[in-house]
Amino acid sequence: MSEQPVSVAIVGMGTVGTGVARVLTEQPDRIARRAGRPVQLKHAVVRDLKKSRGIELPPGTVTTDLARVIHDPEVQIAILLVGGIHPAREILLDLLAAGKDIVTANKALLCEHGEELFARARDLGRTIAFEAAVAGGIPIINTVSQCLAANQITSISAILNGTSNYILTQMISENWPYRQALAKAQELGYAEEDPTLDIDGTDAAQKLVILTQLAYGVRASVADFPRQGIDTLDLADLTYAGELGYTVKLLAVSKLVDGQLEMHVQPTLVRHHTPLAEVRGPFNAIALVGDVVGETWYSGRGAGQMPTASSVVADVIDTIAGRTRLTFPRLEVWREPAPFPMQPREKIVSRFYLRFSVLDQPHVLADIADILGRNKISIASVFQHEAEGSDEAGRRTVPLVIMTHRTTVGNIESAERELARLTAISPPHVRMPVVN
Amino acid sequence: MSEQPVSVAIVGMGTVGTGVARVLTEQPDRIARRAGRPVQLKHAVVRDLKKSRGIELPPGTVTTDLARVIHDPEVQIAILLVGGIHPAREILLDLLAAGKDIVTANKALLCEHGEELFARARDLGRTIAFEAAVAGGIPIINTVSQCLAANQITSISAILNGTSNYILTQMISENWPYRQALAKAQELGYAEEDPTLDIDGTDAAQKLVILTQLAYGVRASVADFPRQGIDTLDLADLTYAGELGYTVKLLAVSKLVDGQLEMHVQPTLVRHHTPLAEVRGPFNAIALVGDVVGETWYSGRGAGQMPTASSVVADVIDTIAGRTRLTFPRLEVWREPAPFPMQPREKIVSRFYLRFSVLDQPHVLADIADILGRNKISIASVFQHEAEGSDEAGRRTVPLVIMTHRTTVGNIESAERELARLTAISPPHVRMPVVN
Repeated sequence: MSEQPVSVAIVGMGTVGTGVARVLTEQPDRIARRAGRPVQLKHAVVRDLKKSRGIELPPGTVTTDLARVIHDPEVQIAILLVGGIHPAREILLDLLAAGKDIVTANKALLCEHGEELFARARDLGRTIAFEAAVAGGIPIINTVSQCLAANQITSISAILNGTSNYILTQMISENWPYRQALAKAQELGYAEEDPTLDIDGTDAAQKLVILTQLAYGVRASVADFPRQGIDTLDLADLTYAGELGYTVKLLAVSKLVDGQLEMHVQPTLVRHHTPLAEVRGPFNAIALVGDVVGETWYSGRGAGQMPTASSVVADVIDTIAGRTRLTFPRLEVWREPAPFPMQPREKIVSRFYLRFSVLDQPHVLADIADILGRNKISIASVFQHEAEGSDEAGRRTVPLVIMTHRTTVGNIESAERELARLTAISPPHVRMPVVN
Repeated sequence: MSEQPVSVAIVGMGTVGTGVARVLTEQPDRIARRAGRPVQLKHAVVRDLKKSRGIELPPGTVTTDLARVIHDPEVQIAILLVGGIHPAREILLDLLAAGKDIVTANKALLCEHGEELFARARDLGRTIAFEAAVAGGIPIINTVSQCLAANQITSISAILNGTSNYILTQMISENWPYRQALAKAQELGYAEEDPTLDIDGTDAAQKLVILTQLAYGVRASVADFPRQGIDTLDLADLTYAGELGYTVKLLAVSKLVDGQLEMHVQPTLVRHHTPLAEVRGPFNAIALVGDVVGETWYSGRGAGQMPTASSVVADVIDTIAGRTRLTFPRLEVWREPAPFPMQPREKIVSRFYLRFSVLDQPHVLADIADILGRNKISIASVFQHEAEGSDEAGRRTVPLVIMTHRTTVGNIESAERELARLTAISPPHVRMPVVN
């Protein structure tokens, strides 16, 4: 082993940055053995020098001055753990221009500016490693881009947001409304003070974009596909789904259907006792199908200090060992021409869970069934509970739950336009796809 | 991309070899893109030229003459898919000496002669890649040796033999005796005509040895740890386990306990609805715990033509791309001094399932409970069904099932020696560990 140490810098000492610093400083022998050289954490760039981080670094390491990293020729790898787009993008470009290889966990940045940043890195002969950007401790980037290299991936179905999965698990197991489960998640540190990006599906969608670009070579952006979070879910629908033998998961899907790419992030009914249904709490899981390997499955903690640090440090080791330099230039993102077109939303085929609030009066079910039937939607099962609500005018309403057979989103939307004209139905309608 | 093709040879055109040939010849563009160079399958060495393999290769490719590979300087990578130890070992050494990098799926060979073969490859500046040797299509070698490089692995609990898992699944779901389930597995191609190595636990033990050497850096061999297969299992015990809320899996375990390595392959009671319990049919699954990442989980098809071919071709691509040359010399097998000693068998702590055939007469349970108690074995639950058997002397016996609390194998073995002297108990005793 060469004794010449490699100097690295962490930019952004939040939860993950602190975890990375812990691994690098507490396990120097292990890291050195596996990287082939000792690794020295030379700078840790913070916003606030006074904030306590529960880690003691050598004097002179912690700084608020990014320029110390930029202008230090000894620093070969910059670990960028600043979140969000700005100034993360500008910092990353500056670090590349200064000749640093990059390791980052910033999924939002790669999702939005990956093309620019990857091109810049390639032009400069530098690398960007980002295992930690998707599914925390699960080595899914490496799996897609290296281990399954014999395959064309044909399907990704994944639980990619641990916060949402924790909240859904609590709502179902404790019979809690959404707000109460969210408060618990915040208390335990599974949800941030402003949880918007987690619970509205943005975080899962950004991770799905990165996986999709790698697995299918297509340019995708969050605006290109349907996205819905868990923030609008009603506990009643989780309960009804349970009665039907399903649990509800925030499912991120990207799969080939007849040569087109079907992609969406939505609360989805998943049949009890299937692997995806059994993923509980703040875990992530990814079901990947390849055309050679068949079904494979990966799960683990999708976020949190140490799981994410595990992936960041693995990237640091890969970069020092030279593997990233071989892998990064050949990642099959954004192939030209795009090998697969995006499937139009209205062509997506699925079974659906539908729930209507209907007036407790004769012929309502007949009217609804008639509209569904004329729109080529076949009913698999239906139930109506005792009256339990009322509409804006104070009239008694009952929940009517319908599970359909396979049909298209186009058919469903066409039926929904007709159903909206029925005076016996009061909003909201609830619609979720169903997988087995 | 360099247009200079890389020539490879397959030695051994059985099921997996044919699958590898199919991927290489049917997906040349994909492989070339990902390897950086076109890959040409130049030789396929077979034992019998006349055997039909369902694949058409260019004239002159198929040969019975291994020397054509050895003496062809154009062949850079030899894919060794001959099973067993001899002549596989000699072939591999000859191929290394001829300057070929090796890709192999031969777990028995690596388990038994890995140290010699790895040392020879390193001396010659060559590489051996073996992702396909453990758990078929699951990229577990890469995960342990690269993706989790920030971690000390602390626990491996795995279902590594798909044949055994298929048979157990059938026995439990169909209420079939072992022989009937084995016959079905053979009919479906999940079990070979001579299934010995699969069903006696040898195959799982060999894979566990390879994983253990990589994950813990210790020299291990199949003789070093307790191994039991599924071939002696009685359907009755699977039924009783089910009544207690457990299923039985052939579990391969290798974990750190107080700085020592606990290692065994045994039919094990696994609680219903836990991830390991839900692995059904010919699938493999691996629960890995790392000291940084926490729990992670991998599953997929553990054998079969195309899943295994997926891993073989990934290794070919890694070898051509240059990653194997960086990874192979640094695999942490056989560290000196061994970082962890093997835990003595009698110190292993577990809960246990015990089943005795006892005479249907007074005071038997009291005698057994007394012996267990004096050996510091606490009973968690016990049940005794109606009489259903008889001993060699024709006396009525009843099955007595006991679940213990946590105790040591030493305590259990001490109690078993005493129990063997009770005339009211007739053989066999059944003992299986229990995990939650």
